[in-house]
Amino acid sequence: MISQDSIVALATPSGAGAIAVVRISGEDAILLGASIFKSVKNKEITKQKSHTLHLGHIVDGDKTLDEVLLSVFKSPNSYTGENVVEISCHGSTYIQQQIIQLILRKGGRMANPGEFTLRAFLNGKLDLSQAEAVADLISSDNEASHQIAMQQMRGGFSNEIARLREELLNFASLIELELDFAEEDVEFADRTQFYELLNRIEFVLKRLIDSFAVGNVIKNGIPVAIVGEPNVGKSTLLNALLNEERAIVSEIAGTTRDTIEDELVIGGMSFRFIDTAGIRETEDVVESIGIRKTFEKIDQAQVVVYLIDNGQLIVDKELQKIKIEIEKIKNQYPLKPLIVVGNKADKLTNAELSIINSQLSILHISAKQNTGVDLLKDKLLSFVNTGALRNNETIVTNTRHYDSLLKALEEIQKVNHGLQTNLASDLMAIDIRQALYHFGEITGQVTNDELLGNIFMNFCIGK
Amino acid sequence: MISQDSIVALATPSGAGAIAVVRISGEDAILLGASIFKSVKNKEITKQKSHTLHLGHIVDGDKTLDEVLLSVFKSPNSYTGENVVEISCHGSTYIQQQIIQLILRKGGRMANPGEFTLRAFLNGKLDLSQAEAVADLISSDNEASHQIAMQQMRGGFSNEIARLREELLNFASLIELELDFAEEDVEFADRTQFYELLNRIEFVLKRLIDSFAVGNVIKNGIPVAIVGEPNVGKSTLLNALLNEERAIVSEIAGTTRDTIEDELVIGGMSFRFIDTAGIRETEDVVESIGIRKTFEKIDQAQVVVYLIDNGQLIVDKELQKIKIEIEKIKNQYPLKPLIVVGNKADKLTNAELSIINSQLSILHISAKQNTGVDLLKDKLLSFVNTGALRNNETIVTNTRHYDSLLKALEEIQKVNHGLQTNLASDLMAIDIRQALYHFGEITGQVTNDELLGNIFMNFCIGK
Repeated sequence: MISQDSIVALATPSGAGAIAVVRISGEDAILLGASIFKSVKNKEITKQKSHTLHLGHIVDGDKTLDEVLLSVFKSPNSYTGENVVEISCHGSTYIQQQIIQLILRKGGRMANPGEFTLRAFLNGKLDLSQAEAVADLISSDNEASHQIAMQQMRGGFSNEIARLREELLNFASLIELELDFAEEDVEFADRTQFYELLNRIEFVLKRLIDSFAVGNVIKNGIPVAIVGEPNVGKSTLLNALLNEERAIVSEIAGTTRDTIEDELVIGGMSFRFIDTAGIRETEDVVESIGIRKTFEKIDQAQVVVYLIDNGQLIVDKELQKIKIEIEKIKNQYPLKPLIVVGNKADKLTNAELSIINSQLSILHISAKQNTGVDLLKDKLLSFVNTGALRNNETIVTNTRHYDSLLKALEEIQKVNHGLQTNLASDLMAIDIRQALYHFGEITGQVTNDELLGNIFMNFCIGK
Repeated sequence: MISQDSIVALATPSGAGAIAVVRISGEDAILLGASIFKSVKNKEITKQKSHTLHLGHIVDGDKTLDEVLLSVFKSPNSYTGENVVEISCHGSTYIQQQIIQLILRKGGRMANPGEFTLRAFLNGKLDLSQAEAVADLISSDNEASHQIAMQQMRGGFSNEIARLREELLNFASLIELELDFAEEDVEFADRTQFYELLNRIEFVLKRLIDSFAVGNVIKNGIPVAIVGEPNVGKSTLLNALLNEERAIVSEIAGTTRDTIEDELVIGGMSFRFIDTAGIRETEDVVESIGIRKTFEKIDQAQVVVYLIDNGQLIVDKELQKIKIEIEKIKNQYPLKPLIVVGNKADKLTNAELSIINSQLSILHISAKQNTGVDLLKDKLLSFVNTGALRNNETIVTNTRHYDSLLKALEEIQKVNHGLQTNLASDLMAIDIRQALYHFGEITGQVTNDELLGNIFMNFCIGK
């Protein structure tokens, strides 16, 4: 434990509520708490057990600020690993400010963003990737990102890394030991086992690196391009998808002024819907710019929804045109999932629908009457909710981790190549050390102030 | 204790933060908490002592929702008087929602606004005026209103009422006892003592009723009319007053479209500044409407600040005009405090200032350079921060209490008159009962569902 000053911050969201929690951490946190607290039962706070709650008043001289509950956590059994006091007060902003100001006057210091979690890391309560997961957990707004952050916070990711690092470290020691006996030309490290380990590490690293694409999508939402003309019912469809879902509908100005993205959560996954114009053949210059833009948006998307007004399809000429368009998209993006959705199905007779079905693989919905929308949701989920997430595998979502994993992989591949080309042990040892360094960057065994500064500045104050 | 279902709500402000607190109260609250919580030390929550904290996970089947701290409070030692569990979770809105939904699925019910405090009242943890003070405390945004709410929450007000009620009840019993012995014409109640009590009650009631004016002002802010022409620096003055003060600057549309009120906190008191035009003599109809409006605003104000540009005063003709205006205000409102403020003092020489001072009692400031502004603040405070508040006397801020106090006073005066006119004991007893009823309304000894509904619907959910 590094002896540090006592930091204080509001831990609950800002604004007024029933209660608010002010948190103090540091060697003197309990003393500090005791200096402003008067227990209703005249208990001495410094003599109380860890993990106990006490009713009393926050007092500033002879002035009573509030009736509060004070929690005592004793080092090392606290979030930060230090002595911690949490004051659960009435939630007016006035009281929150007054209590914090009183603590500052009594010798506390305002906490920096993420400083509680930084201390938890420095005191060995969390490794660095777990600390980072705390911020991800707080900002996650859907099931998938929440699940990944939880897994990372509980150490799933860093355990895997730490285990591999341990094994690699073992071999590094043996190989470095060989250097000490260079004259004798001995091999302490079993080359076959080492080769097996390197392959195993490479496999895991590649899997983790690959998972970043999924992780990124989960963190930022799955981009879905909706191709369709203005009047086919795009906004009605978005509203229907939104229906009965707890969803965040945000309007994010896109790269071009005419692109509006709608984000919504379906089955615990976040989807970003990118609205595009159609892609009909045209000789109009302005329209052709529109078509180019549509393709640009399809480029960015993971899934394409091609939305048509079913009413158009009963005109055979229109149907043929649409078939050509669909073929065009399929040719351009053979691997990109495409869902053809026929809206306003309620306006057609069954006979008309079956004629359309004979010519086109199409999902009929009525966005307005909310029929078929669930099928569309299932279909959207089927393209993404596969593999890693379902199998509860570790998924990398953090760019910093991704970066270190890429660098580690590069070094491991160098080592592997060196092993196969009988590279001198001393040179190989350097590459292994480099790989170990990048592993350590992820878990925080290797760190520096700048790195920590960058990580924790993105936290909120009070965490 | 009334056996009730378990209610649940978010107790901390809405939105994301480092932590959030979900509160459950009810006979089965601890069982309910135990059904979704897995202690890291495998502790059985139902067997834990009151006022203890436990680290663990919120689990939904085999899915882990979050790592949390769970607090246990056992009836009657909790806020509501019931069994209470508080879950301190990570502060993402997703987690907050998920935990609350899980609790609802496990048999909890979403709490109504103020239902925790309502239960505290029903279980005798608070009387009604104390319960009302909880809401006042949470909404108080300055020292004065906070202090009054604290005093009321700690029972200062209701203790005084309850004591008087007790004494009155005593006499009521004696007088009613006399009725049983009406034939014998005995007097159990000492009429001199009773008279003395009635006078004492009347005195206290009058003091409390009078305090409502102060209380109202503290709760809603002290209205200050600023009389001054557009270019004399009103907004610069407001900004200078605002400077270095934690303040809420809100723009409240006034009764007329051209009235904007600025609210700011000075020395712990809330002031509402009402901007007015000048009141110069004019024959213009439009202008004379402006003058009428200015007077209307002065009517509403408790203090008048007459703001002039010092530069105007060096022209003798202007100075004389202004003196006439000031006299006019003084004649119209002889009892209303008036502060004449000369702005832009920095633009005058000392010689010029002393000429002005010889003719006019004036506070020179420079709003721009922030000189003299502190003196103005002191002066503003001196008109209000006197009497009751400083002497820590009970102040009534609640319209409901004010109403009951007025009715109680009326009844007490009837009793007093009855006593002096030798009114029959049975008639007097009715008036005493009526007074007791109104006392009981304040503390909640007399209550009904409608009254409780009205009071608690203004609370936030989670309190």
